[in-house]
Amino acid sequence: MATLCRPTVSVPEHVITMEETLDLARSVHADHPQLDLALRLIRNTGVAKRHIVQPIEETLKHPGFESRNAVYEAEAKARVPAVVRQALEDAQLRAKDIDMIIYVSCTGFMMPSLTAWMINAMGFRTDTRQLPIAQLGCAAGGAAVNRAHDFCTAYPDANALIVSCELCSLCYQPSDLEVGNLLSNGLFGDGIGAAVVRGRGGTGMTLHRNSSYIIPQTEDWIMYDVKSTGFHFKLDRRVPGTMEPLAPSLKELAKAHGWDAAALDFYIIHAGGPRILDDLSKYLGVAPEAFRFSRATLTEYGNIASAVVLDALRRLFDENRTADAAKGLLAGFGPGITAEISLGSWTSERGTG
Amino acid sequence: MATLCRPTVSVPEHVITMEETLDLARSVHADHPQLDLALRLIRNTGVAKRHIVQPIEETLKHPGFESRNAVYEAEAKARVPAVVRQALEDAQLRAKDIDMIIYVSCTGFMMPSLTAWMINAMGFRTDTRQLPIAQLGCAAGGAAVNRAHDFCTAYPDANALIVSCELCSLCYQPSDLEVGNLLSNGLFGDGIGAAVVRGRGGTGMTLHRNSSYIIPQTEDWIMYDVKSTGFHFKLDRRVPGTMEPLAPSLKELAKAHGWDAAALDFYIIHAGGPRILDDLSKYLGVAPEAFRFSRATLTEYGNIASAVVLDALRRLFDENRTADAAKGLLAGFGPGITAEISLGSWTSERGTG
Repeated sequence: MATLCRPTVSVPEHVITMEETLDLARSVHADHPQLDLALRLIRNTGVAKRHIVQPIEETLKHPGFESRNAVYEAEAKARVPAVVRQALEDAQLRAKDIDMIIYVSCTGFMMPSLTAWMINAMGFRTDTRQLPIAQLGCAAGGAAVNRAHDFCTAYPDANALIVSCELCSLCYQPSDLEVGNLLSNGLFGDGIGAAVVRGRGGTGMTLHRNSSYIIPQTEDWIMYDVKSTGFHFKLDRRVPGTMEPLAPSLKELAKAHGWDAAALDFYIIHAGGPRILDDLSKYLGVAPEAFRFSRATLTEYGNIASAVVLDALRRLFDENRTADAAKGLLAGFGPGITAEISLGSWTSERGTG
Repeated sequence: MATLCRPTVSVPEHVITMEETLDLARSVHADHPQLDLALRLIRNTGVAKRHIVQPIEETLKHPGFESRNAVYEAEAKARVPAVVRQALEDAQLRAKDIDMIIYVSCTGFMMPSLTAWMINAMGFRTDTRQLPIAQLGCAAGGAAVNRAHDFCTAYPDANALIVSCELCSLCYQPSDLEVGNLLSNGLFGDGIGAAVVRGRGGTGMTLHRNSSYIIPQTEDWIMYDVKSTGFHFKLDRRVPGTMEPLAPSLKELAKAHGWDAAALDFYIIHAGGPRILDDLSKYLGVAPEAFRFSRATLTEYGNIASAVVLDALRRLFDENRTADAAKGLLAGFGPGITAEISLGSWTSERGTG
């Protein structure tokens, strides 16, 4: 059985608070006809602060797609290795033990992806499988867990490393002035996460079953417009309401496993925004407190895209109260609109490690 | 055992011959100091013609990254469905039977990827797994086969659909004037391929074992520069010489399986260029004729990136001479420099279909 071990998450050193975000919105968009609505939406996110890779003055400039992407590459190379090393250590593995690297990131684009550089720079084997995913957005964290699970199901002695590098601040587009953009400018943060899925051994969330679900005919609700200025994030106003059509897919997976989605011991949910969490707890029939890890991520880091589920899971480890065999659910949501869902149980100790 | 069924490949209706390519190079780059070298390299590719999604006059214009990418999306949506339907039919499956769609393409960028649109437009189930890969370049065809194989190994009743949509002509960059660019302008073509990997049943290449290999410290030999004008292909002059360091990885995989890479019955090799094929046959110790399917793809369509291996395999099916249990090897090569290698044997008939 594959086990998702303790994630490591790192956020950059530059911080912007909610008050600073609101002040910025007021000054940058003073004449915006829907400024008040945008301010209200930002306030409602509950995001107390976010961490970004550059000072806010730099973040607000747009030096062109090429420069932005060069910053992405440099920052990823500077920040990913330490996170990966810690995740390996927490899984009690070395780079040489990893059979597949799943690298998920929708906020910069490189070909070859960072996986090639990591193999060369960090001592991974030359036969490491590379699985870079750039097009699943925030759902890619859940997708990475699920594809790692599948891989370790196919090869029970294998180990997969998941890396999520989301530098959302590098996708800030000053010219995008929809209310959804102004909200996004106050919602997303930067974060880098990594975790190992061990085919054998390891402590953490032992993965039982996974599934994907797409809400029909919503493919343009969360999307990128690709332009000469880079990726332009588009967020439909109907997105916060998607938990009603999406919740049944989580219930069905639990039911197929003989579990009740309303009565699990832990929940690791993508913190897309406050209403996503509020609605999902309502439609699943669980107490809001059950999503405390995701709420903490949202409050302290903002929506860090595909890295949210890794950070929420890290907080579960940190809480250190999960009993052996406790049942849990992990779910990432993103463009499609797609859910990537996983069921697992807690493995707190191993005879052989 | 998972079986890679008959691929379908479609190439666009606009054709450019080698002579037209040479004439164009002479007129567009009349003053280029290395024109003669470029002409010689183009002639040496042996690419008799290529197929492209727009007339050559349109192809040579650069209307901006946004317009280019919009053409990519429109052409992909117009051309992918028929190819996918034929691949499904040849695998004797319906869209509802597919559990995972692996969509590989490095010549346009969409988020969500075309997988979301395909599910909505083509009748795939809402719980179809989506695996879009944009960053493995020409190696992605082999990677798609290998990840489909892994998936069907994990879930033996599952079926995976592979789609490769490579519209290389939409990455033409008029301002790129390195000799490698001029060569690439005469080498790459457009093509769309699809094939099903069936977990059970099906006829074709039954997949036994796969591996990846990266040649150390070559990550910048084949790469994209990402700019406001889109993806700029960079090709190092050392790339044609990479089969010497790469061939051992193919031999090792065969050896690990108790096979001899020099004595297999069929070879499906990425046709990166003529020297790739010439050198690899030399280093593997096989007759040039063994790579006839890849050579035919290169001659008739050019290098169609990740779709090459699907097209070469289609030609093997068309030849219709492969004996049951014949042993074969499939390999894609691309940025990294990465090889994605697969071993399989021929399954020509099934008791139950």
